[in-house]
Amino acid sequence: MEKIIVFGHKSPDTDSICSSLVMADLQTKLRGEEVIPYRLGELSEETKYVLKYFEIEEPKFIEKIEEGQQVILVDHNEFTQSVDGIENAKIDTVVDHHRINNFTTSEPLFYYAQPVGCTSTLLYELYKLNNIEIAPKMAGLMLSAIISDTLLLKSPTTTEKDKKAVEELAKIANVDINTYGLDMLKAGTNLDKYTVDELIHLDAKKMEKEDIKYVIAQVNTVSIPDVLKRKEKIEQEINKEILAKGLSLFVFVITDIINSNSEAIVLGDRCDAISKTYEIKDNIAIMPGVVSRKKQILPLIEKNI
Amino acid sequence: MEKIIVFGHKSPDTDSICSSLVMADLQTKLRGEEVIPYRLGELSEETKYVLKYFEIEEPKFIEKIEEGQQVILVDHNEFTQSVDGIENAKIDTVVDHHRINNFTTSEPLFYYAQPVGCTSTLLYELYKLNNIEIAPKMAGLMLSAIISDTLLLKSPTTTEKDKKAVEELAKIANVDINTYGLDMLKAGTNLDKYTVDELIHLDAKKMEKEDIKYVIAQVNTVSIPDVLKRKEKIEQEINKEILAKGLSLFVFVITDIINSNSEAIVLGDRCDAISKTYEIKDNIAIMPGVVSRKKQILPLIEKNI
Repeated sequence: MEKIIVFGHKSPDTDSICSSLVMADLQTKLRGEEVIPYRLGELSEETKYVLKYFEIEEPKFIEKIEEGQQVILVDHNEFTQSVDGIENAKIDTVVDHHRINNFTTSEPLFYYAQPVGCTSTLLYELYKLNNIEIAPKMAGLMLSAIISDTLLLKSPTTTEKDKKAVEELAKIANVDINTYGLDMLKAGTNLDKYTVDELIHLDAKKMEKEDIKYVIAQVNTVSIPDVLKRKEKIEQEINKEILAKGLSLFVFVITDIINSNSEAIVLGDRCDAISKTYEIKDNIAIMPGVVSRKKQILPLIEKNI
Repeated sequence: MEKIIVFGHKSPDTDSICSSLVMADLQTKLRGEEVIPYRLGELSEETKYVLKYFEIEEPKFIEKIEEGQQVILVDHNEFTQSVDGIENAKIDTVVDHHRINNFTTSEPLFYYAQPVGCTSTLLYELYKLNNIEIAPKMAGLMLSAIISDTLLLKSPTTTEKDKKAVEELAKIANVDINTYGLDMLKAGTNLDKYTVDELIHLDAKKMEKEDIKYVIAQVNTVSIPDVLKRKEKIEQEINKEILAKGLSLFVFVITDIINSNSEAIVLGDRCDAISKTYEIKDNIAIMPGVVSRKKQILPLIEKNI
């Protein structure tokens, strides 16, 4: 493939898909040559709602890339979360809002990261910096990504920059933030239609610390008990995954987007990484006020594992 | 140390020192609290010339930092080139123009990198972006860093952004680019005053690829034969260094800044990483048109080692 391609992480969330589509638009305009968006997995119901609302086609799926392929990464940098073959790609650009983990290139690149709530907030900045006009559909995608990542600006990851971007983008996209935002988030909480296997992979991030491999998966809901009706089956599926992938820990976080709380199913040899902070009873840790994997769950595992 | 500190790489060149001083100024203004510049080694004659010309004190030396110290890195990201203790620091911000190698943080951070000729070109952009006025002395430092890294805009690493920055900064600093630039570069070519041991460490970068450790050192001169008068002693010192540090390769690049050519003394078990491209005769590789470690020497070693 000769053209530069852009994609977010595996098990793509709304930010990864929207930021890929938006970055392809921005880079195509900046470079004067077509940059193509891709996805590394199935779209969530929430993301489908967004693309339908703004009448945008979903990006094509890609599993593996060839050696030397020029790529742009959005919303991730860890190779374990990226496309197969990333080690031998030519990484041209990264725009991200996560920690950097074991990232390596052989040549200098454009890398833009900030500790903000969403990648799309940085893309919004890049349009501004380059004096490129934002089309209403692109504004809608960025707005959706920020609402998704910050749970309507309520997550502790939310910064002033995210708030400012949302305000501006809602004007350009011509939507009411709260009405649209809640409808969109609720669309992502219809979890009944997923098999248990799909559920635990819906938004799962694989992490590595030294030789320890673990996964933090997260789903949003308006009723945690509703999801826990399938607790036994979810546990069976997670235990299968732990065996198959040699994981030390699997944390399946169920987040109540209305009340901003979470409960997590915690399994594996290294449950202590969670139980040092949250009591685990019957494989469940109750996490009041926790909604952010990145800011509230990942750091405590990294510290304790 | 409670305050945030900023520093460039070990064996600091003019960019590392000037960018530390400038970044401290910029960040102090952005944060409204004092950010302190440091250096990780002795200043070169070129850098001394710059600080004397613009009447600026040299930053204090630091060797090791405590756990949890908040730091800003400029002009590097590889831990092997950074301060002792960097693994346990809290890296708040990085501004750099090198490839990223094995970089890891536990939390999201501000990371701004572009494939331009000099870190100071990016700092110049950050002043602009944040609408902060550039003081003439800070302009002088950034200008000097860019002239140094790009050898007066002649290195193949030079981009349009570097050229534009130099033009603007020269106006603010009120100096003639060519006169000042050549004087500054020449100040750095007085190599006779260094012992051989000092010479090979003056601007030496330690690299690692998997388990292979190697060093690329570089000095600027107006006469390569002048430096090679001490060839035998330089070789002895390099061989000592190879033994002491377990290096597989040491490349000592002598760059003629007037004619934009280099010759390199190449020693170690893995000389083949150079000899595949440049014939090595009597430990010397002649490299016509080569002036950039980053763009012309590093990639070929990384490919062949």
